[in-house]
Amino acid sequence: MSEVTNPLREEVDRLCSVSRPAAAAVAAASDSDRVAALEACAQAIEADVSSILSANAKDLSEAAANHLSSAMVDRLKLDERRLASIVADLRAVASQPDPVGRIREQRLISQGLRLEKVSVPLGVIAVIFESRPNVTVDCAALCLRSGNGCILRGGREAVHSNRALVTALRKGLANSSLPVDSVQLVMEQDRALVPLLLARDDAIDLVIPRGGEGLIRSVCEVSRIPVVKHDKGVCSLYVHREADLAMAIELILNAKVQRPGVCNAIENLLIDAAILESHLPAIAKALLAAGVELRCDERCLPMVPEAKPASEEDWGTEYLDLILSIACVDDVDDAIVFTNHHGSHHSDGIITGNAMIAERYLRLVDSAAVYHNASTRFTDGGQFGLGAEVGISTNRLHARGPMGIEELCTYKFVVRGEGQART
Amino acid sequence: MSEVTNPLREEVDRLCSVSRPAAAAVAAASDSDRVAALEACAQAIEADVSSILSANAKDLSEAAANHLSSAMVDRLKLDERRLASIVADLRAVASQPDPVGRIREQRLISQGLRLEKVSVPLGVIAVIFESRPNVTVDCAALCLRSGNGCILRGGREAVHSNRALVTALRKGLANSSLPVDSVQLVMEQDRALVPLLLARDDAIDLVIPRGGEGLIRSVCEVSRIPVVKHDKGVCSLYVHREADLAMAIELILNAKVQRPGVCNAIENLLIDAAILESHLPAIAKALLAAGVELRCDERCLPMVPEAKPASEEDWGTEYLDLILSIACVDDVDDAIVFTNHHGSHHSDGIITGNAMIAERYLRLVDSAAVYHNASTRFTDGGQFGLGAEVGISTNRLHARGPMGIEELCTYKFVVRGEGQART
Repeated sequence: MSEVTNPLREEVDRLCSVSRPAAAAVAAASDSDRVAALEACAQAIEADVSSILSANAKDLSEAAANHLSSAMVDRLKLDERRLASIVADLRAVASQPDPVGRIREQRLISQGLRLEKVSVPLGVIAVIFESRPNVTVDCAALCLRSGNGCILRGGREAVHSNRALVTALRKGLANSSLPVDSVQLVMEQDRALVPLLLARDDAIDLVIPRGGEGLIRSVCEVSRIPVVKHDKGVCSLYVHREADLAMAIELILNAKVQRPGVCNAIENLLIDAAILESHLPAIAKALLAAGVELRCDERCLPMVPEAKPASEEDWGTEYLDLILSIACVDDVDDAIVFTNHHGSHHSDGIITGNAMIAERYLRLVDSAAVYHNASTRFTDGGQFGLGAEVGISTNRLHARGPMGIEELCTYKFVVRGEGQART
Repeated sequence: MSEVTNPLREEVDRLCSVSRPAAAAVAAASDSDRVAALEACAQAIEADVSSILSANAKDLSEAAANHLSSAMVDRLKLDERRLASIVADLRAVASQPDPVGRIREQRLISQGLRLEKVSVPLGVIAVIFESRPNVTVDCAALCLRSGNGCILRGGREAVHSNRALVTALRKGLANSSLPVDSVQLVMEQDRALVPLLLARDDAIDLVIPRGGEGLIRSVCEVSRIPVVKHDKGVCSLYVHREADLAMAIELILNAKVQRPGVCNAIENLLIDAAILESHLPAIAKALLAAGVELRCDERCLPMVPEAKPASEEDWGTEYLDLILSIACVDDVDDAIVFTNHHGSHHSDGIITGNAMIAERYLRLVDSAAVYHNASTRFTDGGQFGLGAEVGISTNRLHARGPMGIEELCTYKFVVRGEGQART
């Protein structure tokens, strides 16, 4: 009847046994204690620059040995400038107003009781992410600012960098009044650990997976803990017949070309049938000049001889590349139906000079962010004024779109009386 | 290669194929159209009173044949008065202000873009509940008021009543501009249908289980759709040393005795060590006189000769009955630790004349509702001014505590510009 020792389970037990009390201490800490702890973390990273960079160099040499793509290597790479920017982001999160204790609503209720709906920390948050080391510091900072503890699980490629960064963060915490264990890193790299961690709904309140589709799907499939997904973006712009052509070209180029590998870049362009001949050739010319491959539906194809025909699959594909699918729609309602059907409910926009049409589109397109006469590329915690972001939620529940410190809180009802009993 | 026909899967496919377009139509409907549809539903129930009551009579005679408890039969039973009250609740939900389109926040962001965070319906909501037929109408009304479609799955005991009620609701919808399929009832009673339904995260956005622990656990275990749980309440009152004795007795009796079978009744009483001898005998006397069985810890037992000793298990038990466990705590911090450890984070309160002590308790007790000098029995959508409630959430994410039409919404970010591209 001897129990087999499982080192993965031991690691999970170790993480979970300390996370709840640590999070309770962070939740009970004052605003100024949490701000001071973040400043201590910033200083600890600054003091550890050389050891962090040498740890990162190990990751980079292993990446080279493993023939990682240059894009992956670029995401992984730290230097003094990038580290300074990570520390600046940490201080920007610290300078955000305290979300804990914010009174969301207050009113008099039954029998003169005074009711307040007050923001409180969620508890313990697990973040499971892939290669970028800046996510480690961003997520720890956002969790601490909002009164939460966190368990971080980074990608194998960044293991040395993440260890060095979390070591620095924990040195900072040791110089503060918050418990060191309010930021924990999963040390074991075996992927079989993840399902064991995701079974611990007693110890963890929320899981945030950040990474590719495979990661997100595997987390959602096994987790017993609530998951806020940060999933793909199949975004679109719709050029209405009353659009300004120059504005349309500028916004389409911005949304497609400025940074094609991100979730808020567009994959589909919808063009109103009434301006197919007048506008599409100029738009296509600008896109082709920027190196974008175009895939068109039957009605658009004759206007763009350089384009390939689009397949049904194209309308739901997140290219993350310089490829754009173009469809012709009859009117705003057709555009709304197309967007709700094919898109991923992330970020979509209309370009038009007609305010009534724009309002119809904004009301009926069911996406986390909807735009009138602006690029979809603004869907981002920093651009929306949230400081940093833990990600862009594609959930409908709890948080939708860019998710900052407010969204890492829940609330409680505080009721003050003078002896009221229910009748 | 012939496919085996599965009638349960067919039923689920039928429900799911129509729910999404129906919900989209409800979401797009105007406030006045949704209010008019609810009034049409109210009138349809009023017109169907006799057929609803005869359907209910069938359920009652089957309940008698199956020897259901008198409490279960009482919950099941409808009469003209109860039906009138159900219709009155439906009209009360209709008269709530429209949550859809409410602007939660607005601000200027990057490059002068105007950002609004706007409430929008969640989509399709499945409610899985046990015997009370009023839940059928309440949930349908709350979903429609908040722009959602719903799929209802009631208990076997109320099958005839639920069918008659949903038939009436759908007659009402047929007399409105909303689609009839915005309210659907699962007709198949086989429990094996539920996991098939809970796999359909493509068609359903939220599942709300309402019922006993077994139902909630089984839904959470298999659901691929987000679940907001309405779980048990292990609630407590803490009598601080500066409590008024008369107020304490009144509030304890109210919280324990007025309706012991509900989730916001207390199961644990915490008494400050400093007033053990001065206050506990009088409190115990009042509880015993009200027929409450008392279970005491070692320090309290000598003060209450009629009490049994409490076991460790008692502190986490939801009795739903005239039983109360009593523990002695040293001070407010001890009370906070006890409550957070043993309670179910539902509703807890402190009785004290000391405002500083009260604020510490209110801040650090991690429950959906925390009370100062009031009965925990107020945790209820009606008492909190939400109209009706779809339940009392014991989740931390999305909604916590009484959940009304606001909590059946999510939000989207609406961004209005004049041609802004991201730099």
